Amino acid sequence: MLTRYIYNNHSYMKTIEFTISHRDGRARAGNLGLNGHRLSTPLFMPVGTQGTVKAMAPFELREVGAEIVLCNTFHLYLRPGHDVIAGAGGLHRFIGWDGPVLTDSGGFQVYSLSPLRKISDEGVKFRSYLDGSTHFIGPRESMEIQKALGADVIMAFDECTPYPSTYDYTLKSLMLTTGWARVCRDFPLEGQTLFGIVQGGVYDDLRKQSAEEITALDFDGYAVGGVSVGEPKNLMYDIVWGTEPYLPEEKPRYLMGIGFPEDILEAVEAGFDMFDCVVPTRTARHGTLFTSFGRVSIKNSIFKRDFTQLDPQCSCYTCKNFTRAYLHHLFRAGEILSIRLNTIHNLHFYFSLFSGIRQAIMENRFTAYKKAWTQIY
Amino acid sequence: MLTRYIYNNHSYMKTIEFTISHRDGRARAGNLGLNGHRLSTPLFMPVGTQGTVKAMAPFELREVGAEIVLCNTFHLYLRPGHDVIAGAGGLHRFIGWDGPVLTDSGGFQVYSLSPLRKISDEGVKFRSYLDGSTHFIGPRESMEIQKALGADVIMAFDECTPYPSTYDYTLKSLMLTTGWARVCRDFPLEGQTLFGIVQGGVYDDLRKQSAEEITALDFDGYAVGGVSVGEPKNLMYDIVWGTEPYLPEEKPRYLMGIGFPEDILEAVEAGFDMFDCVVPTRTARHGTLFTSFGRVSIKNSIFKRDFTQLDPQCSCYTCKNFTRAYLHHLFRAGEILSIRLNTIHNLHFYFSLFSGIRQAIMENRFTAYKKAWTQIY
Repeated sequence: MLTRYIYNNHSYMKTIEFTISHRDGRARAGNLGLNGHRLSTPLFMPVGTQGTVKAMAPFELREVGAEIVLCNTFHLYLRPGHDVIAGAGGLHRFIGWDGPVLTDSGGFQVYSLSPLRKISDEGVKFRSYLDGSTHFIGPRESMEIQKALGADVIMAFDECTPYPSTYDYTLKSLMLTTGWARVCRDFPLEGQTLFGIVQGGVYDDLRKQSAEEITALDFDGYAVGGVSVGEPKNLMYDIVWGTEPYLPEEKPRYLMGIGFPEDILEAVEAGFDMFDCVVPTRTARHGTLFTSFGRVSIKNSIFKRDFTQLDPQCSCYTCKNFTRAYLHHLFRAGEILSIRLNTIHNLHFYFSLFSGIRQAIMENRFTAYKKAWTQIY
Repeated sequence: MLTRYIYNNHSYMKTIEFTISHRDGRARAGNLGLNGHRLSTPLFMPVGTQGTVKAMAPFELREVGAEIVLCNTFHLYLRPGHDVIAGAGGLHRFIGWDGPVLTDSGGFQVYSLSPLRKISDEGVKFRSYLDGSTHFIGPRESMEIQKALGADVIMAFDECTPYPSTYDYTLKSLMLTTGWARVCRDFPLEGQTLFGIVQGGVYDDLRKQSAEEITALDFDGYAVGGVSVGEPKNLMYDIVWGTEPYLPEEKPRYLMGIGFPEDILEAVEAGFDMFDCVVPTRTARHGTLFTSFGRVSIKNSIFKRDFTQLDPQCSCYTCKNFTRAYLHHLFRAGEILSIRLNTIHNLHFYFSLFSGIRQAIMENRFTAYKKAWTQIY
């Protein structure tokens, strides 16, 4: 029993090809082809904010299981500048990563990291957090920057509606996002796949409206944005379950900026295919490690003389070569190797989780798989 | 024409075996066997202060050419504690390094890093820079700590005479060092090789006196300490050339804490075999890179759009995979990968330098090799 959907954007180029090979409830497992790279879904994208997944070399990303990396348009635009990256021959060559890359639109960071921003119908005027210089990014500018960066998947420019926002603000915001999405869709691209972003805040009817407006523009994939921006978890899950029915089945669905293992499992159950999040890398830098028996804070002094393997179930470089006592020592001593070994472990955990997710869907036991994890996380 | 010296400490154990296979002037190339590991001399030891060569994983140390690592007794004593490392099964197992390890005596850091230190004939009372707690380390304590750490080569406890020091102070200091060296030599050890340390400051006759007293104690190797402590370079070179004649030919000679490429070349010419220094790793963290055409400051904006290889002569991971523009960007962005890639490159440079040094000595062209480098450095 194989339900198969094939979607080719350009049959002559196949910048994107998406096949769902298995379904288990609303959860789906499949393949995503991007410019000749074949990825398995559901998939996780580690975040390389400034053109590097913090503390990791490209070969290590491969080793832990990464197949695609996300980079932030906003950061790379400000430093080193998209023109520099274009001069290098694009993002892949600049950062030394031979797999596919996705760039976000810059929208989220323009709102969250820039002082003195001013939104108009045309876009956003803001000051650089680096040197205070004034910049303007609208949908056209975002496309130009992302075209120069040259990622395989690029995102339409949106306003990431803050939480909380009034109904009226959220409505105006989603209309702005739809207008910008139209500009992005009409922007000439070659060899790059463009995803639209659904907004609508926490309001069911506005999520529906945004989803209908954005999907009407016929993008190659759809993201749900404006989640995990401070709203309570049950509200986030409501958005996830509530928005999914309005997203076309045959195209990849990307839940932006999510999340913790439990959030990912929930969203996979709801039918999402793509995820990115700084959680595994950021928590690693703060000494929080994901294991088969739950979260571990390696700075805890109970590990000072614990000469066992961090996670006996884990086969990552960190677990195979070092003890909890050493990881504890490195963290306490503020050593860079602490960040490296923690990051390797956490990313390996995430990619193992995703590998397990795909396997469970293929074997029609995703509910049990999710349940087993949610008893731990 | 092979001049060969063989030195076995314990014929039944061979904790150390040293063979000089070639001489070129006073420069020597040979082999140093440590507990079954065979190293080529002259050799360089990267510094793993707190049980990790900053930013490097053990497999990377191997890749760049490291064969032996130095760790700091003082730091490891204070954190995590030598008892913890003994509990782990020793330093090698704790840090995941399968090659030999050398630990210093702790003396240098007791003097340079500890507030409120008080020297007596028995040793040094000092306060921890971590938590202000009071500690005492004398020759016996240093031996006990280093025995617990379990390095292959350990160092006698000395006073690293500061620069400048009066003749009288330097004389008293070297006599203290000699007394402590005697205690260390009489300390029962198994499977560990003990080196003595020659002091004597900048005074020729005191260096001679210290060398004679220390070598009379018949250690397995000899270090020259108290160099690169603030004295002018010509004075350092005077010490190097002036002390070497008093060190026995058949035993390894270790110039502690040296140095820049030009210093190493000078000391190799004077007949030294072993070196350690934080220069390649520390300068890497500050963006200074050693190349075949001289020192490079990667933060310089001339590299912003320089898409060439850092050093066209270099085959390290950094040079093979990334451009100057990317290294510049990573440094400016304060990314951990910047430190990693810079450290890999600088250590690779150092190990290539040493490989070249050994080759040049074997082929009786060390003078030319040194001259070529000193025109650059």
